[in-house]
Amino acid sequence: MSGEKWLSGYHAVEELLASGEGQGELLYSRRSQRIDSIIELAKEHKIPTRKAGKAALDKIAGSENHRGLLFVASGRGGSKKGGPDGLSTADSPGNLSKADKYTCLEDFLAELPEEDNLLVLLLDGVTDPQNLGAILRSADLFDVDLVVIPERGSVGSNATVRNVSAGAASWVPLVSVTNLARAMAALKNEGFWIYGAMMDGERVDKVNLKGKTALIMGSEGKGLRRLVAEGCDGFVSIPTGGHIDSLNVSVATGILLYESRRQTLGK
Amino acid sequence: MSGEKWLSGYHAVEELLASGEGQGELLYSRRSQRIDSIIELAKEHKIPTRKAGKAALDKIAGSENHRGLLFVASGRGGSKKGGPDGLSTADSPGNLSKADKYTCLEDFLAELPEEDNLLVLLLDGVTDPQNLGAILRSADLFDVDLVVIPERGSVGSNATVRNVSAGAASWVPLVSVTNLARAMAALKNEGFWIYGAMMDGERVDKVNLKGKTALIMGSEGKGLRRLVAEGCDGFVSIPTGGHIDSLNVSVATGILLYESRRQTLGK
Repeated sequence: MSGEKWLSGYHAVEELLASGEGQGELLYSRRSQRIDSIIELAKEHKIPTRKAGKAALDKIAGSENHRGLLFVASGRGGSKKGGPDGLSTADSPGNLSKADKYTCLEDFLAELPEEDNLLVLLLDGVTDPQNLGAILRSADLFDVDLVVIPERGSVGSNATVRNVSAGAASWVPLVSVTNLARAMAALKNEGFWIYGAMMDGERVDKVNLKGKTALIMGSEGKGLRRLVAEGCDGFVSIPTGGHIDSLNVSVATGILLYESRRQTLGK
Repeated sequence: MSGEKWLSGYHAVEELLASGEGQGELLYSRRSQRIDSIIELAKEHKIPTRKAGKAALDKIAGSENHRGLLFVASGRGGSKKGGPDGLSTADSPGNLSKADKYTCLEDFLAELPEEDNLLVLLLDGVTDPQNLGAILRSADLFDVDLVVIPERGSVGSNATVRNVSAGAASWVPLVSVTNLARAMAALKNEGFWIYGAMMDGERVDKVNLKGKTALIMGSEGKGLRRLVAEGCDGFVSIPTGGHIDSLNVSVATGILLYESRRQTLGK
């Protein structure tokens, strides 16, 4: 992961400022009541604020979807153990370096978060950066603990992905692996139950997704590869009717992540 | 809606052929066991089949996502009351003209399907054709009864939308309206309960979406417009955590449609 770390979204920026954990600069290209109150909040937390042109914000965010406000982290996400800018420390949750939290799957498995529910998302051949960007947004909002992509055959985390992800690419822990089947075996070894998304799988709302769960999404046209499917403990499907073949893969992923969250939230 | 009517997706084409309601031609650019069996099925139903170049299929489908098979409807969806090609009749469900089933909202309301559950989806300011295409795919697969878009400020149903929709644009009943607030009032008048998607709405899985339900999605950056929000009977939200502001609008729509279907399917 490279490039400037930034965050857009009024609510998201407010949360980061209020947490006191972000370090950087607040940029705004216009004023409004809401933006004024966020500038106030930044000042309370001693975060510098600066008026900049809309074009400057467009350039950093890679789109016009920033609504006139961006939080830009100071420093780059290079140092692994936390420089004086407070970034890139593996052990301070809430900073802007969550995406770099683990360098490989083994790192994640070695220090599994002690939570009742863990959710890992594996993507087998998602080749469209629009889709990967949207999936990373969903992964952030549904608190996915790790996203795993194969080094080959997937789109990787390029500039388009980061832009489409609306900042989520800076937040979602992401690792790439050379061999997805081996990664599945390693997850199983740590007690994860692995579900593949497949059209004739069990209705997902009838499947228990609590505990340590890994979800694998195949590519849109072809579904799961044979070797990957063979490594699954079970298969889940989204109950649909209609005429066409399948949902967009980022929509299907979002639905499965929502269903997981619905179950773990409980009543 | 104009352009050639076609359908891709093995499963979808099989269903259409088996229904005996589609009239047209089956095109294939390659052979496989699955494609062979679909060709057999076509022959059983006296549907002509033809081998064509991959480029020809790409051109019709507007993408390479057809996996070597397309069903192309004979005739264009122009005639409203059903020509000899069996297309465009308002009263034969399952043909290729479902998208033209209603010319306006009043048509739909005048002949409301007699079902326990009806679902109308209103889109207020979805300006990205990628998103509208993905939303139409979801609308087809979750059996949405009608999609309503405002004439102004939305993307409309252009070529990109049709292509991204993977054929769904030919299936989903879609009408445009000049005034969304008035459309909401008309729906309420017929007993629809109108929910707006809003971040501080009630958790959607705690809300009863059965019966006559209309869902309104706002634009990604700005949410629902004030006048539209004022016309809602209630607000629903998707329970999320995370750092960034919001889900992609097509993902959020897919999740709400899934939740509706989950409730109406029952146990």
